[in-house]
Amino acid sequence: MLEQAPDVVSIYEVSPRDGLQNEGATVALSGKVRLVDALLAAGLRRVEFTSFVSPRWIPQLADADQLARLVMAEVPEGVSLSALCPNRRGLERAKNAGVREIAVFLSASETHNKKNVNKSIADTLAEFEETVRPALDHGMKVRGYLSTVWGCPYEGDVDPKRAIDIAVKLHEMGCYQVSLSDTIGVGTPRQTQEIVKRAKDALPLDALAMHMHDTRGTALANIVVGLEHGVRTFDGSVGGMGGCPYAPGAAGNVATEDLVYLLHGMGIGTGIDLERLVEAARVAESIVGRVLPGKVHAAGLRSLRA
Amino acid sequence: MLEQAPDVVSIYEVSPRDGLQNEGATVALSGKVRLVDALLAAGLRRVEFTSFVSPRWIPQLADADQLARLVMAEVPEGVSLSALCPNRRGLERAKNAGVREIAVFLSASETHNKKNVNKSIADTLAEFEETVRPALDHGMKVRGYLSTVWGCPYEGDVDPKRAIDIAVKLHEMGCYQVSLSDTIGVGTPRQTQEIVKRAKDALPLDALAMHMHDTRGTALANIVVGLEHGVRTFDGSVGGMGGCPYAPGAAGNVATEDLVYLLHGMGIGTGIDLERLVEAARVAESIVGRVLPGKVHAAGLRSLRA
Repeated sequence: MLEQAPDVVSIYEVSPRDGLQNEGATVALSGKVRLVDALLAAGLRRVEFTSFVSPRWIPQLADADQLARLVMAEVPEGVSLSALCPNRRGLERAKNAGVREIAVFLSASETHNKKNVNKSIADTLAEFEETVRPALDHGMKVRGYLSTVWGCPYEGDVDPKRAIDIAVKLHEMGCYQVSLSDTIGVGTPRQTQEIVKRAKDALPLDALAMHMHDTRGTALANIVVGLEHGVRTFDGSVGGMGGCPYAPGAAGNVATEDLVYLLHGMGIGTGIDLERLVEAARVAESIVGRVLPGKVHAAGLRSLRA
Repeated sequence: MLEQAPDVVSIYEVSPRDGLQNEGATVALSGKVRLVDALLAAGLRRVEFTSFVSPRWIPQLADADQLARLVMAEVPEGVSLSALCPNRRGLERAKNAGVREIAVFLSASETHNKKNVNKSIADTLAEFEETVRPALDHGMKVRGYLSTVWGCPYEGDVDPKRAIDIAVKLHEMGCYQVSLSDTIGVGTPRQTQEIVKRAKDALPLDALAMHMHDTRGTALANIVVGLEHGVRTFDGSVGGMGGCPYAPGAAGNVATEDLVYLLHGMGIGTGIDLERLVEAARVAESIVGRVLPGKVHAAGLRSLRA
């Protein structure tokens, strides 16, 4: 099945948003700019750099408008800097900042969605009329996150059929890509195979992404199963920045450098310079002030001894 | 290919030997007994508990004879407690302690073998006449480790054909199983596929084991490829105890609890109680006095919230 893996994979970097929103520390604006710069210098071309969310919800990202002004002032050719927008107000802020791509999110499980946005899944989908539709009308690209596909912190198991039905709705609504998320990092390979097979049957491969958390060490194993089924977009967070809000002290997002190490080792192209990505992981560690769980940046690319 | 994974897998636990020999701290004898007890209580049936090596080489294991007397006094039915024996002197110590299974080791790369045991690969194989042969004559089981199969810290790439030729020699010599080792944790899935395919062509599946290090986060991804090719023995070290002698501060052996979480999530039986294995990981952390890198013991088995 490795024979069916794609030759080239697209990495969607979430550390400045998903990473920082789950770190305890609030990072200075200048640190965030350094992180985004380091990510772009490593060759990343898709970076979700903030969330236009209320500062009362996520104080770590309260400087979203200032950060957007700084990073959007000079976006390199071929780079998309996107921002999460939870509602119409967020979309307005994104528009004002000149952001060209937004992301929206909902959960595959009712209880998680309710706890997260205080609405049912059906109501959340209906309210995307106020974000997805006007964003598309404004010429923006819209990406969708579907959380808790591999498991819910409140409900436990999640029905993969139901999850993929919601993913299809996001795609039909105009999301160019839906990122299926293992929000609590419980996924294992046979489950991943079932989810990915269903997703492939329902959506074009380019409309599909995997957003895996490494909370129980299984992220790369699940990603290999995705690769075997032809999935060609994966989300990552450099250094493994972010942690897990449901398991304090545990790992969250898969570390982008570990993912890129795996892909390059398989001969799969990413356009990323892994040495510079390791430097970006060191920037990430320095701005959050803690040792991050990603492994390649701690081990180095090789273990050669003189 | 996941369809071809085995229904049941055997775990060979190496934390009391490979783990402790690479930890900075020297653990008290009583701590080692507690660790072995916790591993057996979790349902592990194959535990390599020490190495009969010179204390000048590995002071952490200087109490091998005392430990052997304690743990061999009462070995539960169906359990094999094995010990690494680097030479004839080690074998004599193992015999005196009543050990019924030993392990021998050599490298797939000349430079690593030379640095490790100060002999060529050919000379090491020849000297196994003094350990493997008399151990078999004494009715012991003998397991072989083949190090640096995925890469050498001195030579870099290792020829998989040459590595498997050495594995075959170990098997022909009487090793019931050869554990192919990614000693420096550089392996990636396509490489693993090539190594495992060659190994399967040359050896019976039951004679094959994988000993993967998670130094760059790829251990479980490589193990999934092994499972897809029917490999049914994997080595692990609870908590990920051990570290990497070639990359200070980096991870070493794959954490047994992460491996078992993955296997159970795939519906593959191990005979292990994962909750008690997590308790063993906590024992491991307490005796070495540091936070170990295994993820499941940090995250918990589930992330359910009330």
